[in-house]
Amino acid sequence: MEQRTDLLAKRFVGLEKNIWIEFAALAVEHKAVNVGQGFIDYEPPQYLIDFWTEAVKDPNILLHQYTRGFGHRRLVEAISNVYSPFFNRKIDPLNEILITGGAYPSLYNSFHSLLNHGDEAILIEPFFDCYEPMVRSSGAIPRCIALKPSPASVDADISSSADWTLDKNELESMFNSRTRLIVINTPNNPIGKVFTYEELEHIASLCQKHNVICISDEVYEWITYDPTKKHIRMATLPNMWERTVTIGSAGKTFSSTGLKLGWTIGPKHLIRCCQIAHQDCVYTCPTLPQEVVARCFEYERNRLNSPECYFNSIPSEFIGKRDKLVQALKECGMKPVVPDGGYFVLADFSQLAGDEFQSDAEDMKDFKFVRYLTKEKQLATIPVTGFYTAEHRHSVDKYIRFCFAKKDETLDKAIEILRKLKKQ
Amino acid sequence: MEQRTDLLAKRFVGLEKNIWIEFAALAVEHKAVNVGQGFIDYEPPQYLIDFWTEAVKDPNILLHQYTRGFGHRRLVEAISNVYSPFFNRKIDPLNEILITGGAYPSLYNSFHSLLNHGDEAILIEPFFDCYEPMVRSSGAIPRCIALKPSPASVDADISSSADWTLDKNELESMFNSRTRLIVINTPNNPIGKVFTYEELEHIASLCQKHNVICISDEVYEWITYDPTKKHIRMATLPNMWERTVTIGSAGKTFSSTGLKLGWTIGPKHLIRCCQIAHQDCVYTCPTLPQEVVARCFEYERNRLNSPECYFNSIPSEFIGKRDKLVQALKECGMKPVVPDGGYFVLADFSQLAGDEFQSDAEDMKDFKFVRYLTKEKQLATIPVTGFYTAEHRHSVDKYIRFCFAKKDETLDKAIEILRKLKKQ
Repeated sequence: MEQRTDLLAKRFVGLEKNIWIEFAALAVEHKAVNVGQGFIDYEPPQYLIDFWTEAVKDPNILLHQYTRGFGHRRLVEAISNVYSPFFNRKIDPLNEILITGGAYPSLYNSFHSLLNHGDEAILIEPFFDCYEPMVRSSGAIPRCIALKPSPASVDADISSSADWTLDKNELESMFNSRTRLIVINTPNNPIGKVFTYEELEHIASLCQKHNVICISDEVYEWITYDPTKKHIRMATLPNMWERTVTIGSAGKTFSSTGLKLGWTIGPKHLIRCCQIAHQDCVYTCPTLPQEVVARCFEYERNRLNSPECYFNSIPSEFIGKRDKLVQALKECGMKPVVPDGGYFVLADFSQLAGDEFQSDAEDMKDFKFVRYLTKEKQLATIPVTGFYTAEHRHSVDKYIRFCFAKKDETLDKAIEILRKLKKQ
Repeated sequence: MEQRTDLLAKRFVGLEKNIWIEFAALAVEHKAVNVGQGFIDYEPPQYLIDFWTEAVKDPNILLHQYTRGFGHRRLVEAISNVYSPFFNRKIDPLNEILITGGAYPSLYNSFHSLLNHGDEAILIEPFFDCYEPMVRSSGAIPRCIALKPSPASVDADISSSADWTLDKNELESMFNSRTRLIVINTPNNPIGKVFTYEELEHIASLCQKHNVICISDEVYEWITYDPTKKHIRMATLPNMWERTVTIGSAGKTFSSTGLKLGWTIGPKHLIRCCQIAHQDCVYTCPTLPQEVVARCFEYERNRLNSPECYFNSIPSEFIGKRDKLVQALKECGMKPVVPDGGYFVLADFSQLAGDEFQSDAEDMKDFKFVRYLTKEKQLATIPVTGFYTAEHRHSVDKYIRFCFAKKDETLDKAIEILRKLKKQ
């Protein structure tokens, strides 16, 4: 049987690689300072730990058994209560929210329940790398358009995520009668771009014109740095609720990616589709994490308008880290792209890397540089071409991604390594 | 957009119904005594709660963040340590085990990574109802063969799960060049049949003859009642390891279905396929539940040969409940099928139900009777035709399924309702 080379179903052939699996393992193997993967390496909020302790000891022992398939009642109600004001409508907890095992399976369920073989899905590069294989495994065809930095920003020593934009005409040309959906990610990973109202409005008008669904990945919704560039939810634009699926993440919201819990919010006719895919592949999510996240949302709901509310305080926790890392990147000779949202910084490393790092048929320049940094310098980052399709990746092979959602000790160690890099 | 009737992707059309979603909701709505769904309604083992408390308070705060995608290291190692002796081989924790969000997604990943459009998958009825839609959503074709009760047992007031067998010639006729895999479930849900060595050997010989993969759903592996009919693992039969994927469940093993954690064990060439499907749809499972289950396995490993070991003690916990329920079913005029494994009893209700319960084009007799019992008598059970395809369900529409993994109070309430039923 092991001689058979055709064991893997065709839907996955060509999709075997996964940068997270490779680079997470590499970081562990080389005991590297990990400023690659997007997780916080220090304590999540204390109340999260406290709610865990309470939930585990709760006399309701049914918290150890299956809960409602489409989402634990207490959790969908808590999410409805917190999010309804942000969506400018009362969200029906039972029909307009689906609880999933994270934003990742929310994306998977959306794609697999809404895409048929031969449909087209528009993806905006750079994108969280799973979008493409998920679309492909559904049998649909990704059509990709890249955010491009303005010419002036490319040469600048320091630039902004807002310098990366879509060409309007190019975007319009992506839509046709086979287009089923478009995926947007705001704040964007890895650039940190926060889409403006005008940018979203243009995408929305195209969705309406071509009867296209919008999958809006908003897992970094609470993490924006510029008060004039706040996160805007696609579903709140005129006539967009009925065609938008919004995806959120408990791991990102409460700084505890180990929860692996997410949600899909949208109109009943779209959530129903996601529910059917969900019931086919997982049926229900673990009960205790749902109970804990429900309690976290209930807690935050009572202080939504206060600066102590975690959704408000988290950007101020991160902004110092962002600026510290940006400064260090600049000093060591990289050119950082300062993000307006999220917790990643892109950095152009071309001034720092020698000529031995070149993209070739085998591998991309940034993959080589990241492997080098991880193995030789014990600094783990993520290559940016992993967020691009083959077609567009050559234009961005000089960037790597840093995550600054790390404790000061980790950041300081990373900065120390960066300083030594410069000296060499 | 809500006017579009073609929103749901074709792969799921016709697969929208799910008996668990319907009957779990119905039980809650009518505050029924729930002896339907397969979960324990009392405390899981105390050490599980203790390990939860310890893990939540563990100073290693990385337990709140992402862990290894294919399975938390401590958990895959613990599973390898516990299961290796039962599989008569050293199981490689990194390449021969995949941790999933439960047996349900283990099944989904196996089907979707191993089945191509047009392949055939042999299913043995009655089967856990998700098998069929999962196979169909992969594009493959289910070929179904039913376990049939011996003629004598059908008329008996009480019979055994061992009376249900496969016709050998019929089984052989199911295999052909398009057959990619066969699914077995031992101990079987809902009958409770424990497949004998001879029965497994016949299936194994057909798998080898036709180069077919066996998906062995063994989630009730520890729950068998007759010392002469112990659970036998398909993967331990000669030449079967290399073509068998074995699926297990933490929820069933540790009586805490809310864990929603499972595993797939098999040779590297098959697990690699399952890993690729897993990384496409979920990437990784929650960290804390994996840590807790790892500690549970480590704890049990130290007392595997003692009667206190939960894997050994759990059948003695259940056998009294089984016998009590069987007796009550008999007394009220139902004909129970006494299971050799698992925690379900099938019961023929035809003597008890009036003529108003008849299968028709709209609905099956057992569905009607279960809805009646849930709504009018506040007794929640599960209809058995839900475990059969349309082709074979008419022969079993007189059975409903009871779960006896319930606290005595629940069982007593259920028995009280059954007694009143008889009087009417």
